[in-house]
Amino acid sequence: MNQDEKYLRKAIELALEGIEKRVGGPFGAVVVKDGKIIGQSSNTIFRDHDPTAHAEVQAIRDACKNEQVHALDGCILYSSCEPCPMCYGAVHYAKIEKVIYASKHATADKISGFGVDKIYNQLSQPVEKRSPNHIQLLAEEGKTVFHEWENKPYDASELKKSINDK
Amino acid sequence: MNQDEKYLRKAIELALEGIEKRVGGPFGAVVVKDGKIIGQSSNTIFRDHDPTAHAEVQAIRDACKNEQVHALDGCILYSSCEPCPMCYGAVHYAKIEKVIYASKHATADKISGFGVDKIYNQLSQPVEKRSPNHIQLLAEEGKTVFHEWENKPYDASELKKSINDK
Repeated sequence: MNQDEKYLRKAIELALEGIEKRVGGPFGAVVVKDGKIIGQSSNTIFRDHDPTAHAEVQAIRDACKNEQVHALDGCILYSSCEPCPMCYGAVHYAKIEKVIYASKHATADKISGFGVDKIYNQLSQPVEKRSPNHIQLLAEEGKTVFHEWENKPYDASELKKSINDK
Repeated sequence: MNQDEKYLRKAIELALEGIEKRVGGPFGAVVVKDGKIIGQSSNTIFRDHDPTAHAEVQAIRDACKNEQVHALDGCILYSSCEPCPMCYGAVHYAKIEKVIYASKHATADKISGFGVDKIYNQLSQPVEKRSPNHIQLLAEEGKTVFHEWENKPYDASELKKSINDK
């Protein structure tokens, strides 16, 4: 069996397990590095009382926790469904190399009504027009944070916690 | 002092604390319900080895954990910076009522180079053109998950874990 299909079937299995165990929505994901699964999860929003516990986010968190890193360069994310914008953000920040998925989000929406299009629509609006309302206050005080950050640079060794630095 | 400014200053303080304690990037957030802080966090990606541990995501996770819910209807999120697309997803799924922020992400990018525009650019592309590559396989097998989900509906009492149901 094709390796990609093997890992993607594992993600689909995790989605089915999540339904069976009632831990969250019907989604599963695994993170693979050099042919080895280093992180995996079902969607666990109900079990964990965590609206951000999508399968992709949880699989990335699991891999990072297992490897004690915050960047997964060179890793492949297999997901039972196309990542939503929140999960795409997680993929971006984790420096995932490639995403392989089974269902399009339009399919998920059509069958089960998850409404991911609403998020895309909102993100295509300028922040001033977004729902829920986004209001800016204290703009000048806010900037001080970035100046403080610039003045206290991290030791480079703290920042290079990629899986490839180990 | 204006209440909104009070909570937003708390978010800015958390951002400064996070820099001081070296737990992550220069961002802080609090979740407020009926005038009470129910969740808060700095960005903790370095401390927690978690690339998804942005301040907004962590404050939402903290509030949901404290309240043992997965939806924060009627809550306000105060953030030292405009939420990125990943954090906007968290805001959407948590059903946050309003977001009040200090810095625009363009300001963060200009001073400290966080590059959130790259995420917006990618999300405006169709998934087939997105970076990193997103590849679809096993489309038919993927659909079985949603049919299984439809066949095993959750008890409504399990799904209504909003802060307003308590």
